[in-house]
Amino acid sequence: MTETRQIVLASRPEGTPTPENFRLETVTLAEPGEGEMLVRTIWLSLDPYMRGRMNAGKSYAAPVEVGGVMEAGCVGEVIASRNTWFASGDIVQGPFGWADHAISDGVGVRKIDPNVAPIQTSLGVLGMPGITAWVGLNTIAEAKAGETIVVSAATGAVGGVVGQLAKAKGLRTVGVAGGQEKCTFAVQELGYDACLDHRATDGAGLAAQIAEAAPQGIDIYFESVGGTTLEGVLPNLNDHARIPLCGMIAWYNGKGIDTAPPLPLIWRNILTRRLRVQGFIVFDHFHRFGDFLTEVAPMVADGRLRYRETVTEGLENAPGAFLAMLEGGNFGKTLVKVGPDP
Amino acid sequence: MTETRQIVLASRPEGTPTPENFRLETVTLAEPGEGEMLVRTIWLSLDPYMRGRMNAGKSYAAPVEVGGVMEAGCVGEVIASRNTWFASGDIVQGPFGWADHAISDGVGVRKIDPNVAPIQTSLGVLGMPGITAWVGLNTIAEAKAGETIVVSAATGAVGGVVGQLAKAKGLRTVGVAGGQEKCTFAVQELGYDACLDHRATDGAGLAAQIAEAAPQGIDIYFESVGGTTLEGVLPNLNDHARIPLCGMIAWYNGKGIDTAPPLPLIWRNILTRRLRVQGFIVFDHFHRFGDFLTEVAPMVADGRLRYRETVTEGLENAPGAFLAMLEGGNFGKTLVKVGPDP
Repeated sequence: MTETRQIVLASRPEGTPTPENFRLETVTLAEPGEGEMLVRTIWLSLDPYMRGRMNAGKSYAAPVEVGGVMEAGCVGEVIASRNTWFASGDIVQGPFGWADHAISDGVGVRKIDPNVAPIQTSLGVLGMPGITAWVGLNTIAEAKAGETIVVSAATGAVGGVVGQLAKAKGLRTVGVAGGQEKCTFAVQELGYDACLDHRATDGAGLAAQIAEAAPQGIDIYFESVGGTTLEGVLPNLNDHARIPLCGMIAWYNGKGIDTAPPLPLIWRNILTRRLRVQGFIVFDHFHRFGDFLTEVAPMVADGRLRYRETVTEGLENAPGAFLAMLEGGNFGKTLVKVGPDP
Repeated sequence: MTETRQIVLASRPEGTPTPENFRLETVTLAEPGEGEMLVRTIWLSLDPYMRGRMNAGKSYAAPVEVGGVMEAGCVGEVIASRNTWFASGDIVQGPFGWADHAISDGVGVRKIDPNVAPIQTSLGVLGMPGITAWVGLNTIAEAKAGETIVVSAATGAVGGVVGQLAKAKGLRTVGVAGGQEKCTFAVQELGYDACLDHRATDGAGLAAQIAEAAPQGIDIYFESVGGTTLEGVLPNLNDHARIPLCGMIAWYNGKGIDTAPPLPLIWRNILTRRLRVQGFIVFDHFHRFGDFLTEVAPMVADGRLRYRETVTEGLENAPGAFLAMLEGGNFGKTLVKVGPDP
């Protein structure tokens, strides 16, 4: 019998979540049954999509129930196993939730080779955010050398990979990020041709800056934000531009919805500029994970693809780290270190 | 020297156009120069896109200048020619404008064979609206047998063709139109499986009706309207649905923009349902005109593909017919009979 701490959804947020929406509990886990294993969490991934899971009502995935453990991708160590495919001592990545320990039946779990890259990259550049970037750029946007891409949340877990993969492919890359520090990092460390601070201006001001940074116009807008960034992008889109859409974090908490541009304006742009706006959810593309790793893992291993992490220590601090991330307080991939390295 | 009547843009409309935005003039045309020809207009096509040309500012095409002749596709007879490719007596389709006669240099002009179908079909089912329907359904939406399509403006010049081509392809077809008469026609004459009247309800009511008429959900929404129709469609879209977007007539005059759903709601739907919203302008696809005619002309010739026309007699009545069309007062293809048959 294993005692574990876990963080549950205490109540559903109205608009911006608060610490009171979460509750830390200690429970006793049953022994792993036939086919199950006990995993000790080392790294916990915090991602914007979790905000959606806190709401009632079906989206593309079912919501977390009130009183249920918050969902998350994690990296952990198998410490007891009655599952054929996993053994004690294995390092695994899987949906173990916001908890110190979890019982897993192995569904959605994969072994991680610690020799390829630091194990927590399986939650970032070599995990869900990484393949989101790779699929969005290649499959959804069909990026081509010589085009210009604008990347929202340019230094985020997804955006940072988009910008670097696009640059490697021969595109002009323009990032948009919140704050000068992120913009400097985007250009100096991630190799963006330019990066613009959406916090220092408004939609019209950003539009003017983008016009300068993207003198040939925008062929691809990698959209995970909405809000001011989208307003700045819209007037600069070329005919036949593509907008792969995998998030809209600026609007997740309900803020800014009233002041967003009216739908007919977007509709008119889609029509007259022949835009293709395409939503995608990375889960639909996990069958391509092998192809993704084949291409991108070597780039991480030899340092061509760089990444940054914001690490918070301690499961009990996960809610605070999550709330900060929703406001852009993170830098790169947001992680919680839940337990010691193996 | 030929005297001609022509209708010019007298002033730019603010919101809904009025008769005062147009002016009928009589001018004297110069003789056709080298490479030119004189055309007598027989049929004048009225299309929703013309509303956009009345506004200042570049859209996908330049606006009509104040004082300039209103643009239109027409069918006419060549009555004098110094152009190698066209001879007196030829029936031609081309951009001759709102006028009794026009001088043309042959650009954008093609000969019409009066034996294939009535010559004015080159402005409708076998012309720009027809290929819009064909390209939108096949190239943009990639329609497949067994899917469900909802067609806005279901009895219009474009929508009527979309519905029939989709039905022939094996899709379930649900139309949305303005008024019971159009809905009855859509089902009885055009073969729609169902047709719903957006004027008899609101967005939520229409959504409930669509849910009944499309029990498997919507795979394709053929969008040329916006407004209430779009509101009714949104909650019924399946994952991976496609929205080919070639118009938004409900919003052309600026009405309903304030009450349109907020952009973040659309963005959320695009994201969570992995929608593909793709604008298209038929002019980009005119190189496929031959393929289109090869497939669709026989369907018109043998009556498999049906169409309806609203004909107004006399050039001087074109503005009134145009204004009525913008309010949905037409039925099928809107035409003005400007001169006698050849």
